[in-house]
Amino acid sequence: MIQIAIMGHGVVGSGVAEVLLKNAKSIARKAGEGIEVKRILDLREFPDSPLADRFTKDFGDIVDDPDIRIVVETMGGLTPAYDYVKRCLEAGKNVVTSNKELVAAKGDELLAIAKEKNLNFLFEASVGGGIPILRPLDQCLAANEVYEIAGILNGTTNFVLTKMIHEGMAFEDALALAQRLGYAERDPSADVDGHDACRKICILASLAFGRHVHPEQVHTVGISAITLADVKYAEAWGGVIKLIGRAHKREDGRLDCFVEPMLLSHASQLAEVNDVFNGILVRGDAIGDVVFYGRGAGKLPTASAVVADVIDEVKHLKARKYLFWEKGQEGYVADYREAVSPMFLRLRCGDPGACLERLESALGPCARIAVEGAPAGELGLVTPPVSEADLEALLAAQPDVAAESRLRVADF
Amino acid sequence: MIQIAIMGHGVVGSGVAEVLLKNAKSIARKAGEGIEVKRILDLREFPDSPLADRFTKDFGDIVDDPDIRIVVETMGGLTPAYDYVKRCLEAGKNVVTSNKELVAAKGDELLAIAKEKNLNFLFEASVGGGIPILRPLDQCLAANEVYEIAGILNGTTNFVLTKMIHEGMAFEDALALAQRLGYAERDPSADVDGHDACRKICILASLAFGRHVHPEQVHTVGISAITLADVKYAEAWGGVIKLIGRAHKREDGRLDCFVEPMLLSHASQLAEVNDVFNGILVRGDAIGDVVFYGRGAGKLPTASAVVADVIDEVKHLKARKYLFWEKGQEGYVADYREAVSPMFLRLRCGDPGACLERLESALGPCARIAVEGAPAGELGLVTPPVSEADLEALLAAQPDVAAESRLRVADF
Repeated sequence: MIQIAIMGHGVVGSGVAEVLLKNAKSIARKAGEGIEVKRILDLREFPDSPLADRFTKDFGDIVDDPDIRIVVETMGGLTPAYDYVKRCLEAGKNVVTSNKELVAAKGDELLAIAKEKNLNFLFEASVGGGIPILRPLDQCLAANEVYEIAGILNGTTNFVLTKMIHEGMAFEDALALAQRLGYAERDPSADVDGHDACRKICILASLAFGRHVHPEQVHTVGISAITLADVKYAEAWGGVIKLIGRAHKREDGRLDCFVEPMLLSHASQLAEVNDVFNGILVRGDAIGDVVFYGRGAGKLPTASAVVADVIDEVKHLKARKYLFWEKGQEGYVADYREAVSPMFLRLRCGDPGACLERLESALGPCARIAVEGAPAGELGLVTPPVSEADLEALLAAQPDVAAESRLRVADF
Repeated sequence: MIQIAIMGHGVVGSGVAEVLLKNAKSIARKAGEGIEVKRILDLREFPDSPLADRFTKDFGDIVDDPDIRIVVETMGGLTPAYDYVKRCLEAGKNVVTSNKELVAAKGDELLAIAKEKNLNFLFEASVGGGIPILRPLDQCLAANEVYEIAGILNGTTNFVLTKMIHEGMAFEDALALAQRLGYAERDPSADVDGHDACRKICILASLAFGRHVHPEQVHTVGISAITLADVKYAEAWGGVIKLIGRAHKREDGRLDCFVEPMLLSHASQLAEVNDVFNGILVRGDAIGDVVFYGRGAGKLPTASAVVADVIDEVKHLKARKYLFWEKGQEGYVADYREAVSPMFLRLRCGDPGACLERLESALGPCARIAVEGAPAGELGLVTPPVSEADLEALLAAQPDVAAESRLRVADF
């Protein structure tokens, strides 16, 4: 019987306890040994829990207990999760976490401690909830040069965009609905401003390219500036707007890595990932395009990913699994203004025809997008590939032009 | 340095050698040891291969060589692959295969030998080419009760159906195009008649539900009877026709398992899996729906899946990975006529109105599908859930009615 502890009894942590109890028999068969929750750390009391006698408010009951071989961290946030996880690893305990903020900020450091101590530190649930993505990515990586990852990584913003696209709801109304349905927090900024997606693309990029990417290095734009006018232009062009986290290996060895709303054609395999679903595209030299799709959050999907990691750690108590990346580096992520893509522009101009002509003479032929009922003086178009820096300079030099929207157009 | 052998130097086998040579350095880093191809078994000569000196026509050079720890089988077919793989396992060698026919027919027996000998027998490439599916499925299974798998498992038939759906091509023309493009064999029956998809759903169902499913137990219908008239009715109903391999755990412990063209609504996550792509849906109690998508065949995707298995075996030379299922059993798969679904029917009737009325009085309200330009006397409809057996009996009892098409409607 392997004894484990769970730190945090919130949505995910209580789900982990529930799955471990409910599927105890089949889990024991798969792990090769039974798994018992010896301790649950939470400051609250849960007298009605079937595990009520396991609760403690004292972290020492976990870190100092030599019988506990695996610790599950589902507290979220950096404090005290970072300190606790570090001390558990230093005390020789294997760790599983669902905490994306922790892995995105401190993954390199914690993986280095795990490596030194010959322990496992796994975090499948930190990206894509229940969708198996980190393990398959590791497998894709085994025999492939993976050069790009792009994903719809946040279910809340995808729900909001789906309502805007399919039902013509305004951003505020769609967000209010998401809050009513429990998909969005009362303070929705971590989702809406792209920070949640940013943490996830950091973890994916760190694993795929072998070096830690810090959230501060990733240009992050949320969806609050997206309007129904943009949605209509996207539709008229033949596509949709999605919030995408993207990491791409440049020829100079650096990464392009950002979170931005992007314009995707209907032919894209990510275009039909709707509602609260997530979809993650992996591109490799031998494997081509592979997409993983599913519900990116939720108590039981996320808990089941955590439990799969626990089972894996039980199976690898002696031999550490290979999962590692190097320390991050300043300048490793290129300035987002350098990344070249076709751009969608929605401009307000004194003279749209003249404006288009000037842009085309600088950039080459653009695809003008006609939208019924567009206000006079509005110009929608897609440019040829151009860097953000060059485009910004060009637009600033135009007389009588104000950019209302600017979105990269995806090549996936 | 780990020494391996490759049996068969066709498309996949030569791809495996190519990937191992090309990515030797990063593969050695991932496996923890270098991997060297000591022998390649093929009756043909390849004097221009960089590995020309490793070729042999004598299986004894592999099975009797104690230095060879891992054998890759990419010959295809049962003879002599089955005999060779069995003898390699009995001689204490780990085996990787891409051979779906072999795994679908003999998986239980070969897994039992591997278990007894404490060896690994892996076959990720046998389903979905380069798409990681067996390993993620194993992970889904760890903490979930998976109860259904449905997939577009054959790229050739999916290409043909896509051409029929999107370009209105007739079946024969689309098949001829697939042959010209190299997607279909000169004798296309293994694809077109559903046998290839059948082998893959057998492997998926065996792994997911823990007991071998034999191809002979799986009702298999191909796509050669699908006409453009059916495609039009599907479109008018709001969906598409796809060739689906499906396995579903019944409440009585048996499986529903078949390969059939099915009617999928546009909202299905498999409806937009087009051209030669594959998509596999996994449904579990905790995880919900998860979909894996990518190119299901091709030299390098398939080879990269084989190489990932080889790397995994190098990492697990001492500790066997858990991958196992029990022997098959007569009666384990229920008669396909028992499975209940809504059905799409295209009927030729003396009096369509009267016919619909009679069907509705037996089955309950049906959804009639109107198609412009349909011949007089043709009736298209979708029934409420009904078993194939009951429906057959009902149709046989109708005067003046001939069923031109009958397709199950998917609930995924």
